[in-house]
Amino acid sequence: MSETTDQRTDETRATARPSRRALIGWGGAGLALGAVAAGGAVAMATGGESQDSGNEAGAVEFHGVHQAGIATPVQDRLHFAAFDVKTDDRAEFVQLLKDWTAAARRMTAGKTVGDGAYGGLAEAPPDDTGEALGLPPARLTLTIGFGPSLFEKFGLRERRPAALVDLPKFPGDNLDAARTGGDLCVQACADDPQVAVHAIRNLARIGFGKVAVRWSQLGFGKTSSTTPGSQTPRNLFGFKDGTRNIAGTETDRLDRHVWVGARDGGAKDAWMTGGSYLVARRIRMNIETWDRTSLQEQEDVFGRDKKEGAPVGKAKEHDEPFLKAMKPTAHVRLAHPDSNGGITILRRGYSFTDGTDGLGRLDAGLFFLAYQRDPRTGFIPLQRKLSAHDALNEYIQHVGSAVFAIPPGVRDANDWWGRTLLSEEA
Amino acid sequence: MSETTDQRTDETRATARPSRRALIGWGGAGLALGAVAAGGAVAMATGGESQDSGNEAGAVEFHGVHQAGIATPVQDRLHFAAFDVKTDDRAEFVQLLKDWTAAARRMTAGKTVGDGAYGGLAEAPPDDTGEALGLPPARLTLTIGFGPSLFEKFGLRERRPAALVDLPKFPGDNLDAARTGGDLCVQACADDPQVAVHAIRNLARIGFGKVAVRWSQLGFGKTSSTTPGSQTPRNLFGFKDGTRNIAGTETDRLDRHVWVGARDGGAKDAWMTGGSYLVARRIRMNIETWDRTSLQEQEDVFGRDKKEGAPVGKAKEHDEPFLKAMKPTAHVRLAHPDSNGGITILRRGYSFTDGTDGLGRLDAGLFFLAYQRDPRTGFIPLQRKLSAHDALNEYIQHVGSAVFAIPPGVRDANDWWGRTLLSEEA
Repeated sequence: MSETTDQRTDETRATARPSRRALIGWGGAGLALGAVAAGGAVAMATGGESQDSGNEAGAVEFHGVHQAGIATPVQDRLHFAAFDVKTDDRAEFVQLLKDWTAAARRMTAGKTVGDGAYGGLAEAPPDDTGEALGLPPARLTLTIGFGPSLFEKFGLRERRPAALVDLPKFPGDNLDAARTGGDLCVQACADDPQVAVHAIRNLARIGFGKVAVRWSQLGFGKTSSTTPGSQTPRNLFGFKDGTRNIAGTETDRLDRHVWVGARDGGAKDAWMTGGSYLVARRIRMNIETWDRTSLQEQEDVFGRDKKEGAPVGKAKEHDEPFLKAMKPTAHVRLAHPDSNGGITILRRGYSFTDGTDGLGRLDAGLFFLAYQRDPRTGFIPLQRKLSAHDALNEYIQHVGSAVFAIPPGVRDANDWWGRTLLSEEA
Repeated sequence: MSETTDQRTDETRATARPSRRALIGWGGAGLALGAVAAGGAVAMATGGESQDSGNEAGAVEFHGVHQAGIATPVQDRLHFAAFDVKTDDRAEFVQLLKDWTAAARRMTAGKTVGDGAYGGLAEAPPDDTGEALGLPPARLTLTIGFGPSLFEKFGLRERRPAALVDLPKFPGDNLDAARTGGDLCVQACADDPQVAVHAIRNLARIGFGKVAVRWSQLGFGKTSSTTPGSQTPRNLFGFKDGTRNIAGTETDRLDRHVWVGARDGGAKDAWMTGGSYLVARRIRMNIETWDRTSLQEQEDVFGRDKKEGAPVGKAKEHDEPFLKAMKPTAHVRLAHPDSNGGITILRRGYSFTDGTDGLGRLDAGLFFLAYQRDPRTGFIPLQRKLSAHDALNEYIQHVGSAVFAIPPGVRDANDWWGRTLLSEEA
């Protein structure tokens, strides 16, 4: 069964189950429903479910050792936002992270942000913007990250992890400052784009005056899979790329290549244990040029056949590639772990199309998202090689870039995003 | 059953059926498949299916008296493009319309654009960009339109329909020239965004050198329904708007308000019989301001309750509204046919989120699409009233605008988009 079919089945299963409306207890004209939903107690998604698979209502568990949205099977749609911090009051910033965590906990469970103001207090500003009412949780995950510039604030300079380096300038980079960097990021993934957009919008709303959106990116279709054995979705070049991605069930590979270990970076960086590092790159594809290229050239550039996604000379996407059969500049050959001393990163990229570029061309491409244990031994050496030699460079340009430390997961209902970094206790 | 559930069911049904891959006859390593798909004969979707419901493979019939994508039940996702014509050679333009028609016929049936070059001629440029391979038709519809500026070319000035007027400047308009106008438009709607993006991209590719994309818009979520009795999806204000939309099955209302009649505009405009007129408006929503507004104010602005979407004082979305119970500036009251001498338009709008605006705010809103028999008695008088009085104006701004004549449908496999306007025969 293809992954596409898997996902659609998930989505259907979700819609057949209690909707957001039902979860928050609305019904009929519902003027007194505050009483039903209020009280502060937050019923969590059933604890017996794996973080990765989503429960019967289509909710992915928010709590865990690691944040959801990394090893979680890749959802269909993305809304990603980078924020700049505007407050210089550390206590206010910590309170924002606590408020965000509470909102994320509710939204990923398919609930509204607020817990009852709608029902009883019609004059109060809504606690939730409302456009996701009636929609299922849609496997929403929310994943927070801290950019290098955050560590210039709040006396955090000494806490900046050694692995959170500034990315070097790579050959061919043409970065737009307006799509680069950010003190914070939130990755919202869901099978319904309205649910992902709703989540980012409500976090921005809660953060009003304390943080501001620096840039954001909508991803309309996933290009990666973290589901074992499934087919890789096609990117806007029409190819399956990233076939050998880490599956969410491969705990050994996740521990080796994605999750920060307890001893990584020494005692100073212990707060990152169970976390990861995210590199985000907005990669514009020159699709008009690509579309006038012959099939042979396209297949040579990737080192795969276009139809099946099989490596050169092989029959199926997941067949073991024979790298020497490919041109030395083939993308698959250059990016393969065997050509890079074993470098492996977890990719969760999405295709984007953001209107036109003013020159009659679609502004389309890949919003590349890669998680890794350490960018210094992950994305950076890989991209040094690719940016220097990859035949694909003729058809792409990196136009936005950011790197974030992804803290460990929120353990339970009392925990909050960033506690291991910012808590004054112990 | 809610419309959302309906749609998901459609989507699932589609994925369980032959995919694009199967339809074009690929299998295995497939080096000789040109023979299977080639030959020029285009197998059409089963003729017994209604244009509106989609066949068992999830394909909507391309041929008909009217173009699909208007009365068709609204698909989940949109990619819309406006083009400027670059050629001044009428024969070349006509050939482009024929080529586009052939491509649209194949893509809406879930096929690749080309008919075999892939299989046998590996050195030839691909006939299709490939990113939709393996995906189902996803109820793709492609709908073409002709803007006023087209009639300045190719000696068409005398053929411009009387109803295709330039839109006046409305109070509050703040139109961006880069998102306004266009000689041609194509509306691509599908349940899978990759299928809609693929279609526009391939039409742009086929048109290279003859047309150029002027602007384009991705719509991530539908805000309208043309399915009888279904609930209206929420817009980014969190409200259900457009509840009383024309259903695709209401042939009487379609004939009265949407389709151009045989005598409309006299003999000169007879080529538009069976067509329609499309008004497209990019409406930016000031969601940050809206989100700080009280629930009472929000409900007063719309004249509906937010939860159910019921008109003021009523219980359910589809209950008959009592307009005098609403504030005089309420959106529902002002837009209701009873307040406008019966004006009724068919709406197919989509929500958009296009990153940020440089001021820390999301660039989000409604891409409004309305079909009508005559803009002079449809959108224009309605928008004159709304732009002057609607309480919603405090929270929205129209930033892009276009109007197009939508020619009648393509009758059969020998017909082509625009024939009634451009054919030299009879």
